[in-house]
Amino acid sequence: MSDTHSHRRHALRNHLREQELDAMLVTDLLNIRYLTGFTGSNAALVVHAADEPGTEPRTVFCTDGRYLTQAESQVPDLERVIERASDLALAERIGGTAAEHRRVGFESQHVTVDGRDALADAAGKAELVRAPGLVEQLRLIKDETEIEALRMACAAADRALADLIEHGGLRPGRTELEVARELETRMLDNGAAGPSFDTIIAAGPNSAVPHHRPTDAVLAAGDFVKMDFGALVDGYHSDMTRTVVLGKPADWQREIYELVRASQAAGRAALSIGTEVKDVDAAARKVIEDAGFGEQFLHGLGHGVGLEIHEAPALSQRGDGRIGAGMAVTVEPGVYLAGRGGVRIEDTLVVRPSTPELLTLTTKELVEV
Amino acid sequence: MSDTHSHRRHALRNHLREQELDAMLVTDLLNIRYLTGFTGSNAALVVHAADEPGTEPRTVFCTDGRYLTQAESQVPDLERVIERASDLALAERIGGTAAEHRRVGFESQHVTVDGRDALADAAGKAELVRAPGLVEQLRLIKDETEIEALRMACAAADRALADLIEHGGLRPGRTELEVARELETRMLDNGAAGPSFDTIIAAGPNSAVPHHRPTDAVLAAGDFVKMDFGALVDGYHSDMTRTVVLGKPADWQREIYELVRASQAAGRAALSIGTEVKDVDAAARKVIEDAGFGEQFLHGLGHGVGLEIHEAPALSQRGDGRIGAGMAVTVEPGVYLAGRGGVRIEDTLVVRPSTPELLTLTTKELVEV
Repeated sequence: MSDTHSHRRHALRNHLREQELDAMLVTDLLNIRYLTGFTGSNAALVVHAADEPGTEPRTVFCTDGRYLTQAESQVPDLERVIERASDLALAERIGGTAAEHRRVGFESQHVTVDGRDALADAAGKAELVRAPGLVEQLRLIKDETEIEALRMACAAADRALADLIEHGGLRPGRTELEVARELETRMLDNGAAGPSFDTIIAAGPNSAVPHHRPTDAVLAAGDFVKMDFGALVDGYHSDMTRTVVLGKPADWQREIYELVRASQAAGRAALSIGTEVKDVDAAARKVIEDAGFGEQFLHGLGHGVGLEIHEAPALSQRGDGRIGAGMAVTVEPGVYLAGRGGVRIEDTLVVRPSTPELLTLTTKELVEV
Repeated sequence: MSDTHSHRRHALRNHLREQELDAMLVTDLLNIRYLTGFTGSNAALVVHAADEPGTEPRTVFCTDGRYLTQAESQVPDLERVIERASDLALAERIGGTAAEHRRVGFESQHVTVDGRDALADAAGKAELVRAPGLVEQLRLIKDETEIEALRMACAAADRALADLIEHGGLRPGRTELEVARELETRMLDNGAAGPSFDTIIAAGPNSAVPHHRPTDAVLAAGDFVKMDFGALVDGYHSDMTRTVVLGKPADWQREIYELVRASQAAGRAALSIGTEVKDVDAAARKVIEDAGFGEQFLHGLGHGVGLEIHEAPALSQRGDGRIGAGMAVTVEPGVYLAGRGGVRIEDTLVVRPSTPELLTLTTKELVEV
């Protein structure tokens, strides 16, 4: 793993040089995890533009005494400073060693107004320069280590759903909350460190609420049951939605299910390198609009997933930018008929040079439980 | 509940007037929850200094379309604006209605450097003034609604531990991870919405690691088992630690257990109104130091709990300020003998005019399981 993190720091250095920064003070914990593998709750990192992979004498990691042993094991390849106020300690160190005038980037999208002032005080003569989103820009394109974690996270969710259904966990009489708890437990049983967000189980009319939270509502024969859930593995988040019917579907259920399925397929097919993200949304949305249900598709088509459950890119009507190889995204159109029921179908996938690779493998045929 | 929130907003207004602010733009979601009851993941709130309880025409809440229904139900007493960029929408509104020059406080300890600029652009002629910590200052003293939530959260944790032990969940041969999962499930069974942080189960030598994360390590006869866990109820976090022995304690185990117990009692006894927080830490620490184990007490004595698992006040050697009635804090001294084992005992309590009220009710006698 050290090689992976060293490689990521090197990619960051190229951005620093482009922006004429001597160094970058990284304080966001997810960005630090991405660049070092450290998973504790307090840390800071200085990446120096002049270092090179394999020899990084000016690149320094800081955490506090609670994580002494953990830091030795997770960040063996960098100098480690132990100090509770990790960000200030590193800022001070940059300031103290700055014989010449130094330009030091900081994460202005994460550092608070008060926090920036404290950093500037500590940094002394070094100049703090806004450098928002540099690490996030790297994180947008997943490397194979990340994709493998996402693959395992998606597999844990797939298997949990299969186990739930196989063991009769979806049946009339159970509550949404009971199903949510069983699904979360089954994800743990299948290797997840936890759910990647609060599981949504929405039965009957509740399935028409896009972000319904599970309640004591009881599943009944004929209901749509919409399940939106994911697993967390090695810090990476999977995200999937499936909607099933308890028993035989009515015609209206079959109709909107097949519509959403066609829309989702169109969205996946549009995920090719160089396509504008809003055009991916548009490709899926058009299928639903053409069927006259455009007003019932209430949200964007999808989003990036990785160390965060929602990250760039946003596949939505307002989204910016283009699809690139190695992006990991969800595709999740839905149609919601208030008071009756709704359908959403969602996969997590990785953009590849040819067709996108599905990480979510559960069938998208309409399942009658 | 609306009365409670209205009362809290009124208390905030008194601070605004003291600081000569016309209004406060609240963007931290926990602070918004505290002031309105709203539990969604996107919101902003303007509290206007000139409003009064029961008639708050200038106090405005904003969230996005996903939370339309939820906002109607949770925030019935305020004007509601629906806009995705909620903070910018309210900043713009303040700017647009500012005929005269207006001083508007913002949470400079939460708002990022980039976020502040966007707010200032939106606010136009209104002046954005740093106003860090105003709501947190109110949250420091819990009202009875909050204490009741904490009481239920502590009860869920107490009952989960009792159930775990009663059903033989602590026994040689089980792993730390299995015990952690059972304890978390039992908290859910006892009314928790979730664990209030990642449960720590540390057996044998692992109990000497203050913040050990549960592993596949197997519990063995004679082990200390240290359990640090808590439940989440209505957004409020309980926090407790108990250390038990599997079987008969050795003399050294009994010795450090009783030492930590005496230290914990001393810390609780020092929790009286007006005492400096660092003196509370000192009272408990002295017991351990006098016994020659000062170097083995590696952390602060405790911390505030509430909508966050760690909040003000910090009961530590570096802590600032004094104890006040209605503060909810933990008292959790520990002694850790590297390679052998450690003990921590922790309660959640509320400071009261006479003696503190224990919310954690589990016995602190040495339990032999």
